[in-house]
Amino acid sequence: MRDNACIVGIGESAYTRDAESPASVLSNQLRAATNAIADAGLETSRIDCLIPSQYGPSTEELAANLGIASLRFATTVHMGGAAAVTSVQTAAMAVTSGYADYALVVTGWNGYSATRTRNVLASNTSVIPGGDIARDYYMPYGLTVPAQWYALIARRHMHEFGTTAEQLGAIALAMRRHAQLNGRAVMRERAMTIEDYLASPVIAHPYRLFDCCLETDGAAAVVVTSAERAHDLAQPPVRVLGAASAHPYPADDITNRRDIFETGLTRAAPRAFAMADIDPADVDFAQIYDCFTFEVLQQIEEAGFCARGEGGAFVEGGRIELGGDLPVNTHGGLLSEAHVLGMNHVVEAVRQLRGGCGERQVPDAEVGVVTGWGDFGDGSIAVLGR
Amino acid sequence: MRDNACIVGIGESAYTRDAESPASVLSNQLRAATNAIADAGLETSRIDCLIPSQYGPSTEELAANLGIASLRFATTVHMGGAAAVTSVQTAAMAVTSGYADYALVVTGWNGYSATRTRNVLASNTSVIPGGDIARDYYMPYGLTVPAQWYALIARRHMHEFGTTAEQLGAIALAMRRHAQLNGRAVMRERAMTIEDYLASPVIAHPYRLFDCCLETDGAAAVVVTSAERAHDLAQPPVRVLGAASAHPYPADDITNRRDIFETGLTRAAPRAFAMADIDPADVDFAQIYDCFTFEVLQQIEEAGFCARGEGGAFVEGGRIELGGDLPVNTHGGLLSEAHVLGMNHVVEAVRQLRGGCGERQVPDAEVGVVTGWGDFGDGSIAVLGR
Repeated sequence: MRDNACIVGIGESAYTRDAESPASVLSNQLRAATNAIADAGLETSRIDCLIPSQYGPSTEELAANLGIASLRFATTVHMGGAAAVTSVQTAAMAVTSGYADYALVVTGWNGYSATRTRNVLASNTSVIPGGDIARDYYMPYGLTVPAQWYALIARRHMHEFGTTAEQLGAIALAMRRHAQLNGRAVMRERAMTIEDYLASPVIAHPYRLFDCCLETDGAAAVVVTSAERAHDLAQPPVRVLGAASAHPYPADDITNRRDIFETGLTRAAPRAFAMADIDPADVDFAQIYDCFTFEVLQQIEEAGFCARGEGGAFVEGGRIELGGDLPVNTHGGLLSEAHVLGMNHVVEAVRQLRGGCGERQVPDAEVGVVTGWGDFGDGSIAVLGR
Repeated sequence: MRDNACIVGIGESAYTRDAESPASVLSNQLRAATNAIADAGLETSRIDCLIPSQYGPSTEELAANLGIASLRFATTVHMGGAAAVTSVQTAAMAVTSGYADYALVVTGWNGYSATRTRNVLASNTSVIPGGDIARDYYMPYGLTVPAQWYALIARRHMHEFGTTAEQLGAIALAMRRHAQLNGRAVMRERAMTIEDYLASPVIAHPYRLFDCCLETDGAAAVVVTSAERAHDLAQPPVRVLGAASAHPYPADDITNRRDIFETGLTRAAPRAFAMADIDPADVDFAQIYDCFTFEVLQQIEEAGFCARGEGGAFVEGGRIELGGDLPVNTHGGLLSEAHVLGMNHVVEAVRQLRGGCGERQVPDAEVGVVTGWGDFGDGSIAVLGR
């Protein structure tokens, strides 16, 4: 599989928070998809594989609306926020296996105008990934939304390793600063200071408002093909050097893990780096799924960018900002660009590796990492190279 | 990909129609899964890939309840009744790509005690695959369930090719006769004559009651691994010689296709046979997704077992019964064994190729075909060999 698939097209819809006249999820996904296909320089009819999101229109609706005449393979990854990267991995698998030539991966939702997470989970507990465990052991204690589930892990990290609110704030600030350089970012004109961060209301201790990602409408998409086909297309291909996914154990219950800090990434990252034949130290930037600030810190540790317990120090002092040792979420991430389920992280990684990020470009970016996090810590990672 | 993956374990729950005290979907899926893993002679901890059904427990619930400690890849195929075979294809892709070693594929639902199709579709139109098309153009005409959608195609076939009610009845009778030889079949003690068939009430012309598959509770599962690993296991491996999937165009609207008889199988079958390097004439038996009788006839034609329009003659005179030219659904199929979304067809194909079907064994079975059909004609096919 190694180095045999490439991302050859990227596309996005606008990222919006407009409750009055939002575009539909289908419309946004089609916009992102057609932009990605056009970016690759492909005719839509060449797409023969679709990896649609679990949140959004069906394979059949997407295929018909795009005008895909011959669809050969389609599957959907159910891993919440980890799904975007695993979907890219699945697309890579399909094109390198010969089951498809050109795969379109699209995610997106109306997370602001329709699917507000807090409302959905509170009214329909069956969508909580832990199923019966969540119903019987979380709900009676009022643990109904992700901010509450993951706060438990963050709190434990503070207890064990002395991680501070200011360190979590450094993550929020880095994302916000990057967003000031990104015209697509929802928070592009909303600068933030550490005082602003510390003054924001507590949502679920230790998470303040500004530890929590945005709720936005929008969609993003990529086109994946084989290395051989990639060379005939419009853009310089970005190579999938390595990819892996994993689920922590037990997958359905974050309160009952022997190792509360384990995520899917703990096992997936070594596999992806081995497949890519590089070390974390070789990585020029990382787009890390940032549903909350602490998850960035946790994934930095679990991916091996630093040892466990050292994440707090790692994120301080601008080290994860542009110009630092490991620029993280150069687009602003879920925290300050948009929450479209992580595919915007993949799009930004490709843009960086093409050298097309303007004033937020990481100089001479050769290798970047994208991660996904979802459903109680399912993890995914792709190592991309130019 | 060719000849590189094997099915090494099969398992089923009981197939039941018990509204009083049914087992849960999770319980049935776990039963089928543990049976398949035990059949392969594997420890559950070796499973590192799950392909769960869109209908049923989440990846996380299945993994935790099975005790899968290290899950590396999971995805879900959304193709209704075509999903079981495409899920096997996906599992083959995962193990041959090196992303997983042992993949568990499981489907099942409580189609009798809980999820009666007619009720679900009537109360929740969002699950109809055509989405907005179905809502705007099918619902106003009362086309709310599969029997109505597919009857349109069957009726057209009768008009164009003179296909008769007796020919559809021959399909129902073949499945029912096979079920008499299968202790697991729900209809094992319910023999049927052509007079019974013709006397059964019309549901949606030309479909009578006995043209429609059963509604049952139950689950079935298989374990897939690479050819190399397969040789160390308990059972003789059954090889995946070829596999393919496809969606007709447009995928979301059966009333608006230039070729109303086209299914996913029309394009998938030639690919699967080419991959397996065999002709339809080389096939010893076929397990064909039989949501309704006509779909068996249609798939026999579209897979290339006979020319279009000749299916009516092909199914007559016992040719698709045991002892005939192409025994079809030797277990009784959805029509007379059970409807667990098609995975029981895969299980039966494996059992035939192992030579373990007792009095319903196809003598010297070397090569068998399994098909899937779902969501307005999405199609899938696997060519299996011993």
